[in-house]
Amino acid sequence: MELKMDKPALEAFLASEFAQVSDDFAVEAVAPMTLTTRLKVAERHLRPGGTVSGPSMFALADVSVYLAVLAMIGPKALAVTTSCSMDFMRKPEAGRDLLCECRLLKLGRVLAVGDGLIFSEGSAQPVARANMTYSIPPR
Amino acid sequence: MELKMDKPALEAFLASEFAQVSDDFAVEAVAPMTLTTRLKVAERHLRPGGTVSGPSMFALADVSVYLAVLAMIGPKALAVTTSCSMDFMRKPEAGRDLLCECRLLKLGRVLAVGDGLIFSEGSAQPVARANMTYSIPPR
Amino acid sequence: MELKMDKPALEAFLASEFAQVSDDFAVEAVAPMTLTTRLKVAERHLRPGGTVSGPSMFALADVSVYLAVLAMIGPKALAVTTSCSMDFMRKPEAGRDLLCECRLLKLGRVLAVGDGLIFSEGSAQPVARANMTYSIPPR
Amino acid sequence: MELKMDKPALEAFLASEFAQVSDDFAVEAVAPMTLTTRLKVAERHLRPGGTVSGPSMFALADVSVYLAVLAMIGPKALAVTTSCSMDFMRKPEAGRDLLCECRLLKLGRVLAVGDGLIFSEGSAQPVARANMTYSIPPR
Repeated sequence: MELKMDKPALEAFLASEFAQVSDDFAVEAVAPMTLTTRLKVAERHLRPGGTVSGPSMFALADVSVYLAVLAMIGPKALAVTTSCSMDFMRKPEAGRDLLCECRLLKLGRVLAVGDGLIFSEGSAQPVARANMTYSIPPR
Repeated sequence: MELKMDKPALEAFLASEFAQVSDDFAVEAVAPMTLTTRLKVAERHLRPGGTVSGPSMFALADVSVYLAVLAMIGPKALAVTTSCSMDFMRKPEAGRDLLCECRLLKLGRVLAVGDGLIFSEGSAQPVARANMTYSIPPR
Repeated sequence: MELKMDKPALEAFLASEFAQVSDDFAVEAVAPMTLTTRLKVAERHLRPGGTVSGPSMFALADVSVYLAVLAMIGPKALAVTTSCSMDFMRKPEAGRDLLCECRLLKLGRVLAVGDGLIFSEGSAQPVARANMTYSIPPR
Repeated sequence: MELKMDKPALEAFLASEFAQVSDDFAVEAVAPMTLTTRLKVAERHLRPGGTVSGPSMFALADVSVYLAVLAMIGPKALAVTTSCSMDFMRKPEAGRDLLCECRLLKLGRVLAVGDGLIFSEGSAQPVARANMTYSIPPR
């Protein structure tokens, strides 16, 4: 298995296809079947008390596993999220970016499955975990 | 069982506590253990192709079940989302608001569980389903 | 939409294809997109304290949504469970059968999605909720 | 963090408290926050075609994360499964035991969260993934 898209290719894809949110995210690292993404936490991601909102963490997990899939199958595929489950385990630390470390567990003909752990940068304890499933359209 | 917060009280709570997102949502109906919320779909909720983004549907489900809990226990509680699972089943119709019809399945001392179906307004087929769990802090 | 398999056809299918567990279950009611199944609770389904085990409730939810799919598409398809999520909300009552009331939310070309509520017979409060996804093989 | 129960203590607990199913499982390895369990696959765990049934995989994931919690908090606690989600990704190989490698992601005062990957013995690709949440009763 080798990568069909590297870090610059993934970031260029985000910027062109998801222009509205591409400033929120950066690809930190990518390798076959694994990828780490950063959520550049800004005011718009916060909830009262300074914690990062649930939808922002969902978006981080979703984009991370999605990019991990694209890294393996290339930019042409129109993968669609079909299901997710998340556990929110700790309050993210104020003033820190979030990192999502994800891995693909299955990359099938019609379904891809991955999971991810989300950390406040610099902390060893995950704030959330997620698993996401994508439907891969026929070529 | 009776309501501790009605529609105006819930919308006032949203406006004061979640000012950043309260313009996105309206409470359509509330009764004991059930609530319907509207996502007023705008440009910022869309993805390429005109479909509503996953994080926007997550936010709708989360706020809906959260408000259904508050309607029963009152505004003082600081319920925290501990887990969710969602299935994305159909593409939302372009140019339509989304409605989330949710119900509480359990309202316990420490955990509340609810689920919801999300529809494009005017359609009978759900675009997504969600279940959410909240941790209710000790009084 | 009409049924391709009625109650006797579904029970005959269970008896021939799932002989090991078919004594555990009975189809209570079936209609387009909805089905109710009974778990005939016996000693082998119990955990210490007299409660029904988690795996028995999983099995009930899985067979229920699976039969609801078959009722619509017929017995030839080899649908495979691809994902599930469950919330266990209350302790089942001792000495009572469990009923699972399920509905199909999507019956697509490649994926079917359904959910179910599980009740102790005679109780109005659900003991568990489940959602299940099945992959439907190409004809 | 140190273990309150080692491998013999966990297996003795299984044998005394879950006598009905304790022959199905063996603890392969335990360390702080991680545990590996074996499902000794027998005729009663199989479905037509020789594949391991979904309820058997659910039972494996549930007992694994449960024992990982008990290893950390000791045998007195009566932890209860409150939610799970699973993805079934590949068909288990016929005639092989299943191994579940699980880790605790949170061990809080009232909730514990863990996840696990299930493999056919000798295979590197997971057949299923699971996450489980337990409610820990007040001492």
